[in-house]
Amino acid sequence: MQRPAFARWLAQTNDVTQIFLSAGQRPDLINMAGGLPDPAVWPVAELSAFAASAVSDHPTETLGYGPIEGLPALRDALAARFSTPELTLTRANILITTGGMQALDLIGKVLLEEGSLIAAQTPAYLGALDAWRPHAPRYRTMRLEDPDFAPATAFAGAQFAYTVPNFSNPTGRLVGLDSRRAMVAAAETTGTWLVEDDPYGALYYDGAPLPRMLTLSGVGQTGTYAGPVVYLGTLSKELAPGFRIGWIIAAPEMIAALTAAKQGADMCTSGLCQQIALKAFESGLTDRILPDILSLYRSRRDALGDAMASHLAAHLDWQVPVGGMFFWATAKDPALDTDRLLRQALKHGVCITPSSVFDPHGEDRRSIRINFTLNAPERLAEGIRRLANAIEATLAQTD
Amino acid sequence: MQRPAFARWLAQTNDVTQIFLSAGQRPDLINMAGGLPDPAVWPVAELSAFAASAVSDHPTETLGYGPIEGLPALRDALAARFSTPELTLTRANILITTGGMQALDLIGKVLLEEGSLIAAQTPAYLGALDAWRPHAPRYRTMRLEDPDFAPATAFAGAQFAYTVPNFSNPTGRLVGLDSRRAMVAAAETTGTWLVEDDPYGALYYDGAPLPRMLTLSGVGQTGTYAGPVVYLGTLSKELAPGFRIGWIIAAPEMIAALTAAKQGADMCTSGLCQQIALKAFESGLTDRILPDILSLYRSRRDALGDAMASHLAAHLDWQVPVGGMFFWATAKDPALDTDRLLRQALKHGVCITPSSVFDPHGEDRRSIRINFTLNAPERLAEGIRRLANAIEATLAQTD
Repeated sequence: MQRPAFARWLAQTNDVTQIFLSAGQRPDLINMAGGLPDPAVWPVAELSAFAASAVSDHPTETLGYGPIEGLPALRDALAARFSTPELTLTRANILITTGGMQALDLIGKVLLEEGSLIAAQTPAYLGALDAWRPHAPRYRTMRLEDPDFAPATAFAGAQFAYTVPNFSNPTGRLVGLDSRRAMVAAAETTGTWLVEDDPYGALYYDGAPLPRMLTLSGVGQTGTYAGPVVYLGTLSKELAPGFRIGWIIAAPEMIAALTAAKQGADMCTSGLCQQIALKAFESGLTDRILPDILSLYRSRRDALGDAMASHLAAHLDWQVPVGGMFFWATAKDPALDTDRLLRQALKHGVCITPSSVFDPHGEDRRSIRINFTLNAPERLAEGIRRLANAIEATLAQTD
Repeated sequence: MQRPAFARWLAQTNDVTQIFLSAGQRPDLINMAGGLPDPAVWPVAELSAFAASAVSDHPTETLGYGPIEGLPALRDALAARFSTPELTLTRANILITTGGMQALDLIGKVLLEEGSLIAAQTPAYLGALDAWRPHAPRYRTMRLEDPDFAPATAFAGAQFAYTVPNFSNPTGRLVGLDSRRAMVAAAETTGTWLVEDDPYGALYYDGAPLPRMLTLSGVGQTGTYAGPVVYLGTLSKELAPGFRIGWIIAAPEMIAALTAAKQGADMCTSGLCQQIALKAFESGLTDRILPDILSLYRSRRDALGDAMASHLAAHLDWQVPVGGMFFWATAKDPALDTDRLLRQALKHGVCITPSSVFDPHGEDRRSIRINFTLNAPERLAEGIRRLANAIEATLAQTD
């Protein structure tokens, strides 16, 4: 007998993820595709001790079912951490999620019906497109750097606007203060929820951090935050991804809806992992290791930029990012199809991510994303040499 | 400005969960509503040591991103644990989930469109109804104990059949061998997926365990399992819920679809928690602590049964369960509305779960679920005395 059909969205997944996964098995390959941290930044001894004491000092919180919203002490710690003189956050503004990805899934669950409209900064994070694909949403693409970008027009009629203002994945672009203010104002006037996805907010290598849109939208409010920004944070980039700890900061009515969705998604996030996160904040561990992370990644950003300048300037254009994990480079020659470049790159022993997977409509084949956090400088340079050869080979095929 | 509307399913959540949550804050209340383990069964010292060595011995697996499907070693261990002479399982049959609840969410994602049909053993697990509510499925209710129950008729046209054969939540009922065989045969002839949700499979207090439907459906197959059963397991009842570790065992095509759904749900399950689960299996810890868990819960099952016989026999009918965590008791008098009983019970300082939340159509107000694993015998007895008074008060109001 034939089995029942799978849901329709499963037919729409692209094969690029499969290509990455099989590429990951090859030890000779230089992987510049993912957004992976260097394991050297993890404070293994401290985390091992935290894990042990979390269980022995707090067995009920670590081993039992916890509240759907997360451990009260961790929610309080995050409320305190993100509050500013202009922004009053309480526990009611905080939901703990199972990694940053779950936040995107829950937002889809509470705001999307089939065909709902999302206004998305484009190119857009692949994981967000993955999370929302089952709802078959419509996308209005937003190019924030376009001088004609008008947030209120872009937001109108959308269930939410989706942005990564700090070092966007994939472009590494920093959204400026004026654009942030304009989007907050547009969210206020249109009523649209404004999702501020901020996994890279701590990874500023040059200059002082810009204020969060969450903070900007709190200005002038009194009492517990009730504004339109839905802020997403994660422990993955500042400490380690393996704990799968993220958080959502939003108006209490949004937190209540997301909590109902989380109840049916995974009931609660691991109490052990939450307790370790709490210890990492309270002990100052996350703040203490950040300078070393920034120093390491800044030097790699510089190494990759130098290698690109030496080998790729003839074929690609890019801007050096001031933070985050990625360069975004665009082909000078429109004939350079970056989906085809990926296949050539794999033959040459290097893996990058083509722009098609970051386009909600799957059409952009002009750019690539290159990660600089995982590999040491000499390996980054070798990867770029291989990539230059792959570009030549792709163009030769095209001619 | 008005905010965009939340998704429609959010209007359909019942308020019973909220009632439980606020009841949980009251220290004087005897909570017999939840399905919680007694913290006394947790091997805290061993788990603290496992947590420490998981991080220090396997930093990459515990602290980094892992494969979406789960750690290969844990998938292999589960394949070995559930293989039998009749059933060949490999890594390709296993997906690690973030607790048992995520398995239900992922099944909904890959098999349900709006209005899809589910054939559900009824009364049904509340968490499954929660997980699938966003898809607005239709339900065909199945009463497996009904002598006229015809599985092939019940399964026809359904995307999947949902069952909890070992000590069903909420009824505590054990589905017999003949019914298991009949459902497996019906799944084969109709093609329908057969979800076997088995969180309580280890908690047999009397008699030998019956074979899983997964095992029954493997008989006569050669090579890697490719049958219709989608088996759900969890570490929550046998070790501790706080790790949020569950697993799905199914045909490779189903595992592949579920993996695509998990990618957009939370990317991967905590590597730390997976590594601890692996150690718990490999060291024999789960097998070693099981006899003490069974002994403790058996004595509480007996204590609750004795108290019920002393105080509730005039008003309720029930069968003593041979495993699991719950008694299910049904009012002799149809005028005893158990939603109203819940409110009276809370006034009397005891919490139970009314049948309405386990009915896909929300109509059954004739029964209650009573948990016996969390409280010591004397507290169980006091809870039942309070419940008897609450029943009298509810009936007095009704008259």
